[in-house]
Amino acid sequence: MTEPKATNIKWHQQNVTTEMKASLHGHKGATLWFTGLSGSGKSTLANAVALTLHERKVSTYVLDGDNIRYGLSKNLGFSTEDRIENIRRIGEVARLFSDCAVVNLTAFISPFRSDRDIARQLQPNSFVEVYCKADVSVCESRDPKGLYKKARAGEISGFTGIDAPYEAPVSPEVEVDTGVQSIESSVDKVIEYLIRAQIIPG
Amino acid sequence: MTEPKATNIKWHQQNVTTEMKASLHGHKGATLWFTGLSGSGKSTLANAVALTLHERKVSTYVLDGDNIRYGLSKNLGFSTEDRIENIRRIGEVARLFSDCAVVNLTAFISPFRSDRDIARQLQPNSFVEVYCKADVSVCESRDPKGLYKKARAGEISGFTGIDAPYEAPVSPEVEVDTGVQSIESSVDKVIEYLIRAQIIPG
Repeated sequence: MTEPKATNIKWHQQNVTTEMKASLHGHKGATLWFTGLSGSGKSTLANAVALTLHERKVSTYVLDGDNIRYGLSKNLGFSTEDRIENIRRIGEVARLFSDCAVVNLTAFISPFRSDRDIARQLQPNSFVEVYCKADVSVCESRDPKGLYKKARAGEISGFTGIDAPYEAPVSPEVEVDTGVQSIESSVDKVIEYLIRAQIIPG
Repeated sequence: MTEPKATNIKWHQQNVTTEMKASLHGHKGATLWFTGLSGSGKSTLANAVALTLHERKVSTYVLDGDNIRYGLSKNLGFSTEDRIENIRRIGEVARLFSDCAVVNLTAFISPFRSDRDIARQLQPNSFVEVYCKADVSVCESRDPKGLYKKARAGEISGFTGIDAPYEAPVSPEVEVDTGVQSIESSVDKVIEYLIRAQIIPG
């Protein structure tokens, strides 16, 4: 068709409503949006939370660089424009999983408040921002992918925390200091929030 | 970072494996890819199948124009390039839902074999192509969105079945003639396939 961009397309409720799916799963859907510097433990914590949730019979899904950059965003690079589009797509996919009553966990640096806010606005009532706070020195000492070393050597530029800014969340639903707290206590903090917010049963 | 497109990114298994999720849900994940002309009943059938699956306690999710064009693909138009990218994104999201052990149902015309094959190759063992066969005259007489009328009037061009080709599946897992079969018998045919393929319990 010669029509321009999609307009006037409404999101109809499916025959199987979100409430019906939540009833089947025994819990609501939500997005746990883990944000923080490279090496702050986002992916480790997201996977640990997912495992704990699974043991509580909660349906989960982790979205991270592995399954997004390799698939949905494989036609995107690392320019500012492409990074924004990458985070936008992740926010949209996260919303679909929440709509399916799955507790989905995204683990991306997502350094800009504006990008995270776009993802939040897609599902304001089911968006849980989890700030993985850790001093850049702690993250750099971990450097699991050797990226800080490369950034310091000038081999990569625009690296968050080194020569590109990270905008910390102003009022995240959950904040953990992964440089100080154990993974177990960090997991507990997230789970307690989900129970308090009545996303999962206690 | 100044690195080019994502390369060497592997898809690691999550802590909560697909098998663990399937065990929790009581069934495997799969993509039911409904394809056919506009008005062939893809969306109606997909939603009816989802409802029947839900009644069997199967976790489902329908991906259709409403939730994709309004969200993930809202920055795409209807050029050939954009349509291919739209179907590519849907295939990638479908794979994520299958990986989450959710039976997901996609309802898009997806007229080109090559596009559907790309989606299939992402998950060859869990891709179920459902061909909604219906004579173009039947679809045109239904014309739920008034699009055939517009296409005949020359108001829209490149309309599948009128002045753009539809490439029928060569060997779809399921084929239903929605111009002849009732919705109920079409639903039954899909459910029977899923049981036979051991995706859901009988």
